[in-house]
Amino acid sequence: MKATVLVRPKPGILDPQGEAVESSLKQLGFAVGDARVGRVVDLEVEASDETAARAEVERMCQQLLANPLIESYEIELR
Amino acid sequence: MKATVLVRPKPGILDPQGEAVESSLKQLGFAVGDARVGRVVDLEVEASDETAARAEVERMCQQLLANPLIESYEIELR
Repeated sequence: MKATVLVRPKPGILDPQGEAVESSLKQLGFAVGDARVGRVVDLEVEASDETAARAEVERMCQQLLANPLIESYEIELR
Repeated sequence: MKATVLVRPKPGILDPQGEAVESSLKQLGFAVGDARVGRVVDLEVEASDETAARAEVERMCQQLLANPLIESYEIELR
């Protein structure tokens, strides 16, 4: 099963990469605000069904893919 | 309007971050494969309608958010 995980800095957490992107876009003349940068991780998971796959990816997020203190994550399965 | 841009390494392009994630997950005992790591950029765009917003974000991707030679991008608007 294919999984996509979106990992984003939580609201209020400093995001220097987002700030750099926003300021560069403004310098290029774009009218933008609130830019935040996170990661997207695509992977293939071995699991019997969607519930098992989601639980497995949840564990991956907790252990490696995200830092739950400062990042939130969202799991999509296909 | 809120925009989310997913930027991913194109198929066939080397992805050392994806390889590191996959090997770490395997070492932790997870049965995974084909891990690829990209970026997610969330931003607020000033635009009159969805068509204008999409065109604007498309230009941002070409100019700054992605490297079209080695990365593909996907734009979602809300």
